Amino acid sequence: MTSAIFVQSSFPSKSLNKSLNTHFVPSSKLPVSLSFKPRTVFRQRFSVRAGLIEPDGGKLVDLHVAEPERELKKREAASLPRVKLTKIDLQWVHVLSEGWASPLTGFMREPEFLQTLHFNSLRLDDGSFVNMSVPIVLAIDDSQKERIGESNKVTLVDSDDNPVAILTDIEIYKHPKEERIARTWGTTAPGLPYVEETITNAGNWLIGGDLEVIEPIKYHDGLDRFRLSPVELRQEFDRRNADAVFAFQLRNPVHNGHALLMTDTRRRLLEMGYKNPILLLHPLGGYTKADDVPLSWRMKQHEKVLEDGVLDPETTVVSIFPSPMHYAGPTEVQWHAKARINAGANFYIVGRDPAGMGHPIEKRDLYDADHGKKVLSMAPGLERLNILPFRVAAYDQTQGKMAFFDPSRAQDFLFISGTKMRTLAKNKENPPNGFMCPGGWKVLVEYYDSLTPSDNGRIHEAVPA
Amino acid sequence: MTSAIFVQSSFPSKSLNKSLNTHFVPSSKLPVSLSFKPRTVFRQRFSVRAGLIEPDGGKLVDLHVAEPERELKKREAASLPRVKLTKIDLQWVHVLSEGWASPLTGFMREPEFLQTLHFNSLRLDDGSFVNMSVPIVLAIDDSQKERIGESNKVTLVDSDDNPVAILTDIEIYKHPKEERIARTWGTTAPGLPYVEETITNAGNWLIGGDLEVIEPIKYHDGLDRFRLSPVELRQEFDRRNADAVFAFQLRNPVHNGHALLMTDTRRRLLEMGYKNPILLLHPLGGYTKADDVPLSWRMKQHEKVLEDGVLDPETTVVSIFPSPMHYAGPTEVQWHAKARINAGANFYIVGRDPAGMGHPIEKRDLYDADHGKKVLSMAPGLERLNILPFRVAAYDQTQGKMAFFDPSRAQDFLFISGTKMRTLAKNKENPPNGFMCPGGWKVLVEYYDSLTPSDNGRIHEAVPA
Repeated sequence: MTSAIFVQSSFPSKSLNKSLNTHFVPSSKLPVSLSFKPRTVFRQRFSVRAGLIEPDGGKLVDLHVAEPERELKKREAASLPRVKLTKIDLQWVHVLSEGWASPLTGFMREPEFLQTLHFNSLRLDDGSFVNMSVPIVLAIDDSQKERIGESNKVTLVDSDDNPVAILTDIEIYKHPKEERIARTWGTTAPGLPYVEETITNAGNWLIGGDLEVIEPIKYHDGLDRFRLSPVELRQEFDRRNADAVFAFQLRNPVHNGHALLMTDTRRRLLEMGYKNPILLLHPLGGYTKADDVPLSWRMKQHEKVLEDGVLDPETTVVSIFPSPMHYAGPTEVQWHAKARINAGANFYIVGRDPAGMGHPIEKRDLYDADHGKKVLSMAPGLERLNILPFRVAAYDQTQGKMAFFDPSRAQDFLFISGTKMRTLAKNKENPPNGFMCPGGWKVLVEYYDSLTPSDNGRIHEAVPA
Repeated sequence: MTSAIFVQSSFPSKSLNKSLNTHFVPSSKLPVSLSFKPRTVFRQRFSVRAGLIEPDGGKLVDLHVAEPERELKKREAASLPRVKLTKIDLQWVHVLSEGWASPLTGFMREPEFLQTLHFNSLRLDDGSFVNMSVPIVLAIDDSQKERIGESNKVTLVDSDDNPVAILTDIEIYKHPKEERIARTWGTTAPGLPYVEETITNAGNWLIGGDLEVIEPIKYHDGLDRFRLSPVELRQEFDRRNADAVFAFQLRNPVHNGHALLMTDTRRRLLEMGYKNPILLLHPLGGYTKADDVPLSWRMKQHEKVLEDGVLDPETTVVSIFPSPMHYAGPTEVQWHAKARINAGANFYIVGRDPAGMGHPIEKRDLYDADHGKKVLSMAPGLERLNILPFRVAAYDQTQGKMAFFDPSRAQDFLFISGTKMRTLAKNKENPPNGFMCPGGWKVLVEYYDSLTPSDNGRIHEAVPA
């Protein structure tokens, strides 16, 4: 593993409590054209200036308790009503604690929840908007609500009853499940993975409030060192003198079509006048559905892709994005982009059908493949972010490599679907030369090989794009 | 009927084509506090200034063809592919043509449609937002799409094949019905009236474009004279020297609870320093569900309420709002408010569960009764509008009249539900004295009396609030 690329945090978590404001140079306000029409970045040249993009709300939120107060907070936590967190709840505490959702300071109260559902954005006190498209909420049931009673605070505990955080100035409000699902996913069909995992059987109430997180969230899975916070990422980008940061969100193995896109983006940014564009290769690390390739395998695969020289270690930062996955398409891609602004990215690559999946009960994709990038390019609060629309890459049989699809010679191109890739990896066959670097492919074959046949003979499906 | 109140248009439709800009004084920009918290108007005093509120986008849209060009347009219309309009489509043409949906210039193309679904707002070229919460779209089916072929324009025709408008610079895009329903209503449950009427059996494509409306839309139902356009309403408010206009949207008979609310609002506006607040009593005139009281009966009832002196003719303008009804609760109330900005209203009264109804398949209201006013108060593009939250009125048995509910003596109050009111009217019984003026009640009794028993003995339900 190339340590220069898989950046290990050099900033112990306890140092996160100091004021963050001083770290950031104000972002250059890019003259983005505002229009009914989708914005795309390559239409115009931007003036190139130093300094990372400003986080949403002007300041990165840090919800960790300062070290000297931890013992005090632990004692306070022991005296409060308790709410047990699921694994996914804990991932959201992590996300909130590090400021990925800045300026949110905790689980949403009803005004934020309603604005998220209806407007995909929050209005700040100064009249400006920040994007916020997925509800970050905590559900409780009737008996928990009863136990909380008139308390103004609760302690959030993990599965072992260890206190994780205190939620203060709480507001308990109704959990309108059907409406939440319909407005977030654009469907209420049964079989949406995040819905079944976190909403269907959740309580009928939501509890919002400000978070005081007692200790930084760790998973002890060997990957914590790759979970850089927005502060740490910004420090890394500064250390590398990045004058542009372009983020690539992914939850799947990297193939050479992805790599082509990333290297081509860098080339274009250089052409635009940037001197040192840095790629944030940012695999999602929270909850994913059962048939996605698990994080640990994906990290192995990404490592090989970098070792094999497909991406340049000097200009690439690989880190884990701690958010759970909603599979909510055009709604969720906004969250994916917004969180990366907070991590310092001012360019965001968006592909075909981002955060999409098959319709759970109909034989079609859940979302129109183009809606994601269209919605993203028009989203309130994301005006500062430069959207880089994905050019579709496919296997060019004349060149024997992945290339941007050229409709004028469509017959030369091979689209390798998720099903195709899975079947090949499962059968230990090789894809066409140049589809994926051999080291990366080997990891994929090993992963499918590791799946026990106890799974009713069914092999989980991996989607490549 | 008091002609001073039921204002008859003195502006023939053909005069609508002249530039509208000159009619409007720029609105006073009220210092509205922008915050995560709902805005309500009575928290602060506003500076009172002359001039009506500016329409969305700065200029009222007028999509009528100028008189001298009509014949030319009719000839052009005869040469184009045709799309037949339903009754409700025609109502939307009416709405669009008069600028209620300013700055929309026709049926939505995909960028406006997606922004409406996801953000309930449209971003203008100058970076500002206007509110737009319900899709105003025109559906066509495969064969219609086929017939349109490569044409850049189509002619919209009514049920008798008369040309109504030309739609230019058309864009045809997919009609994602499930997603449209889920994001607009927050449910996909079967039985939503507008959905069953206009979406379920509609075509799989939407056609957007700019409208050129050949002649003003008329219904020839004896009520056209009450259908004042936003231009005509603004002229009427100017004529009356209104320094504040407060709008009351309704689709039900007016009872004394409503009247109390409206007169109390006027009192408060006077207290705030306005000299001449004018009430826009604005019944919705487009599509309503079968069990609502039909427009003609409601207009008779409103007339009696004014005749009986419950509302002051001098300070009340009654007019018909031509929009169809979605019954989409918090989403739709934004449309109801936004359209009234365009008609010159700068205060909007919002009640319990606006535009709500029972859940079509569950035994509960479809929407939380408070979400409408909360969402409205936070909606992007409505910052200039002052939201007047409805105080709940009920029948105070100690006073023998409708009064604001006082929770400290709850036992004194009688809530008269829709079911209760219906049963009384159906049985030709009287409600408690003071619930509704006798003339208005009589109309209601007559309406239920007029329903034929052929309706399987089932009586349509009227909801009073």
